[in-house]
Amino acid sequence: MNNLITDVAGVLVGQAQDAGLASGVTAIIFETPAAASIAIHGGAPGVRDTALLEPEMGVGAVDALVLSGGSAFGLDAMGGVQAFLRERGRGYRVRDVVVPIVPGAILFDLANGGDKNWGRRPPYWDLGYAAAEAIAEPLALGTIGAGTGATTATLKGGLGSASALTSAGYTVGAIVAVNAVGSAMIGPGPHFWAAPFENAGEFGGLGLPAPWPADALFLRLKGDQPENTTIAVVATDAALDKAQAKRIAVMAQDGMALALRPAHALPDGDVVFAAATGRHLRPPDRRDLTESGATAATVLARAIARAIYEARALPFADALPSWRDRFAGLKTENR
Amino acid sequence: MNNLITDVAGVLVGQAQDAGLASGVTAIIFETPAAASIAIHGGAPGVRDTALLEPEMGVGAVDALVLSGGSAFGLDAMGGVQAFLRERGRGYRVRDVVVPIVPGAILFDLANGGDKNWGRRPPYWDLGYAAAEAIAEPLALGTIGAGTGATTATLKGGLGSASALTSAGYTVGAIVAVNAVGSAMIGPGPHFWAAPFENAGEFGGLGLPAPWPADALFLRLKGDQPENTTIAVVATDAALDKAQAKRIAVMAQDGMALALRPAHALPDGDVVFAAATGRHLRPPDRRDLTESGATAATVLARAIARAIYEARALPFADALPSWRDRFAGLKTENR
Repeated sequence: MNNLITDVAGVLVGQAQDAGLASGVTAIIFETPAAASIAIHGGAPGVRDTALLEPEMGVGAVDALVLSGGSAFGLDAMGGVQAFLRERGRGYRVRDVVVPIVPGAILFDLANGGDKNWGRRPPYWDLGYAAAEAIAEPLALGTIGAGTGATTATLKGGLGSASALTSAGYTVGAIVAVNAVGSAMIGPGPHFWAAPFENAGEFGGLGLPAPWPADALFLRLKGDQPENTTIAVVATDAALDKAQAKRIAVMAQDGMALALRPAHALPDGDVVFAAATGRHLRPPDRRDLTESGATAATVLARAIARAIYEARALPFADALPSWRDRFAGLKTENR
Repeated sequence: MNNLITDVAGVLVGQAQDAGLASGVTAIIFETPAAASIAIHGGAPGVRDTALLEPEMGVGAVDALVLSGGSAFGLDAMGGVQAFLRERGRGYRVRDVVVPIVPGAILFDLANGGDKNWGRRPPYWDLGYAAAEAIAEPLALGTIGAGTGATTATLKGGLGSASALTSAGYTVGAIVAVNAVGSAMIGPGPHFWAAPFENAGEFGGLGLPAPWPADALFLRLKGDQPENTTIAVVATDAALDKAQAKRIAVMAQDGMALALRPAHALPDGDVVFAAATGRHLRPPDRRDLTESGATAATVLARAIARAIYEARALPFADALPSWRDRFAGLKTENR
């Protein structure tokens, strides 16, 4: 176990980014098609090919899922991943052709200081293709992939991941690009809202603040425009159908509530995909499903904190500081 | 401010219950019709007349909202509240008739030890009428109304409420009947998951546990049947339309994530209604909406903890203990 979504059997991740653009793409590719669904709880979502993820729709599985920067221009990225998969014969078969099924979601990183003067053709299709080509282990976190240009209200955002085992032996992993309108921190200090769920110092081991900050509940917001969004994939090796995957996606959204304040606001496009690779042989019962959903929520909360903990500031004059810029050198203690 | 949903101008609450039945009804009645919507994030919801709450539907306002025990039999309760309102000329006008618009939701309390042998006609219509007749201030909490028969995995559930002011001066209140499949407590002890949001010792003032329980994240569950559900109304005096009310309902669902572990599981019918009485003269901007939603989440989390804190055990041999049964006499300290 590497505490990454790639701990889930059958899940591969590739990433590509452009430092000058200050944006990038993260492609989550399934070795074999995975049952998947979605929960959209934010007020400003940007998605592609997600209607088929509803339980009543006919396509049962996806070949990949894509998280991208670039706001609505980033919806090209899924096309690049499709091209990569088509060259390898992957996709939904319609007579003698294959159509790779690659839903995805974007976040807004157009105002982060990067050079967005890309001319006629946006760079996201090519970044999508490059991400799929760049499948690598171990998966790198922080200012990378779809998290390259991401920010929060007070600190640089980024790309995070985490994993856990359920009591029945299922692996549950999450990957997330954190670009929230709000903050993952309790007050102005170094402590994460996700601290009660932290595993083995994975985001600094500082635990909860003592004394409790007087302004812990003051809302730190970027602004009120639809320029935010936390986008995530949770995956499990359990054999779920699409309806079960949707239940996992809904429960996993609670991880945003546990790690970010606020979550699910009108200017946030918060989206969670849930995918099931079915590699685990034990059929899940209802209790397994509840535990998997609760685990998906805590794993996503941890992945959100790790995204911020691992991020580096963008190299621009007025860029937001990273968690490490602000709080490095603090003595860490495991609670 | 009484730290109750009735702090929101234009919101009245009446409750009725039957001790032998071990069930009851809570009616939230608006002095004038209120814009309202709904977010259903649980997997086993039981609702009545909620389709019209979607933003694209034509009816713009509701006369009352009802929370009831009785599982699907409790869906009669809304009819009793309608009868009460019709006698008073309240309702949606269709030429010279009025139709009171009274959506609502139920929770499962049929296996709590109460006498459910009611013969042909279930008691919920009459309990609904009685609840509307019993509008009272201050609103009583605990084992009352829709919370009469409610339980959680480890302790008696109940009826809770709380309120808060936003920085712009809007009042946000919540009322909730807590019947979760899981637990509101951190581990086996007396500390609530909602502790970071507690106001002035409203649920004991114990703060967070120290040391942190080793089994804090162990899932305490009633079982895996659809016999649970936390149902809530959040209300504000802001002038919201139905789409804005739906955004508040979605954000308020995060309060369940903050106060209950797990939330939103397949056997939970978790429903949040959001209603806006429009008594506050300042038109809400986008930031007000975000803050109102974030406040609705924390107010609902607090109301959930108060429901359990204020509850008394049912008078049956194998009834679950109440929080006070287990933890009364603990020295309280404000953090």
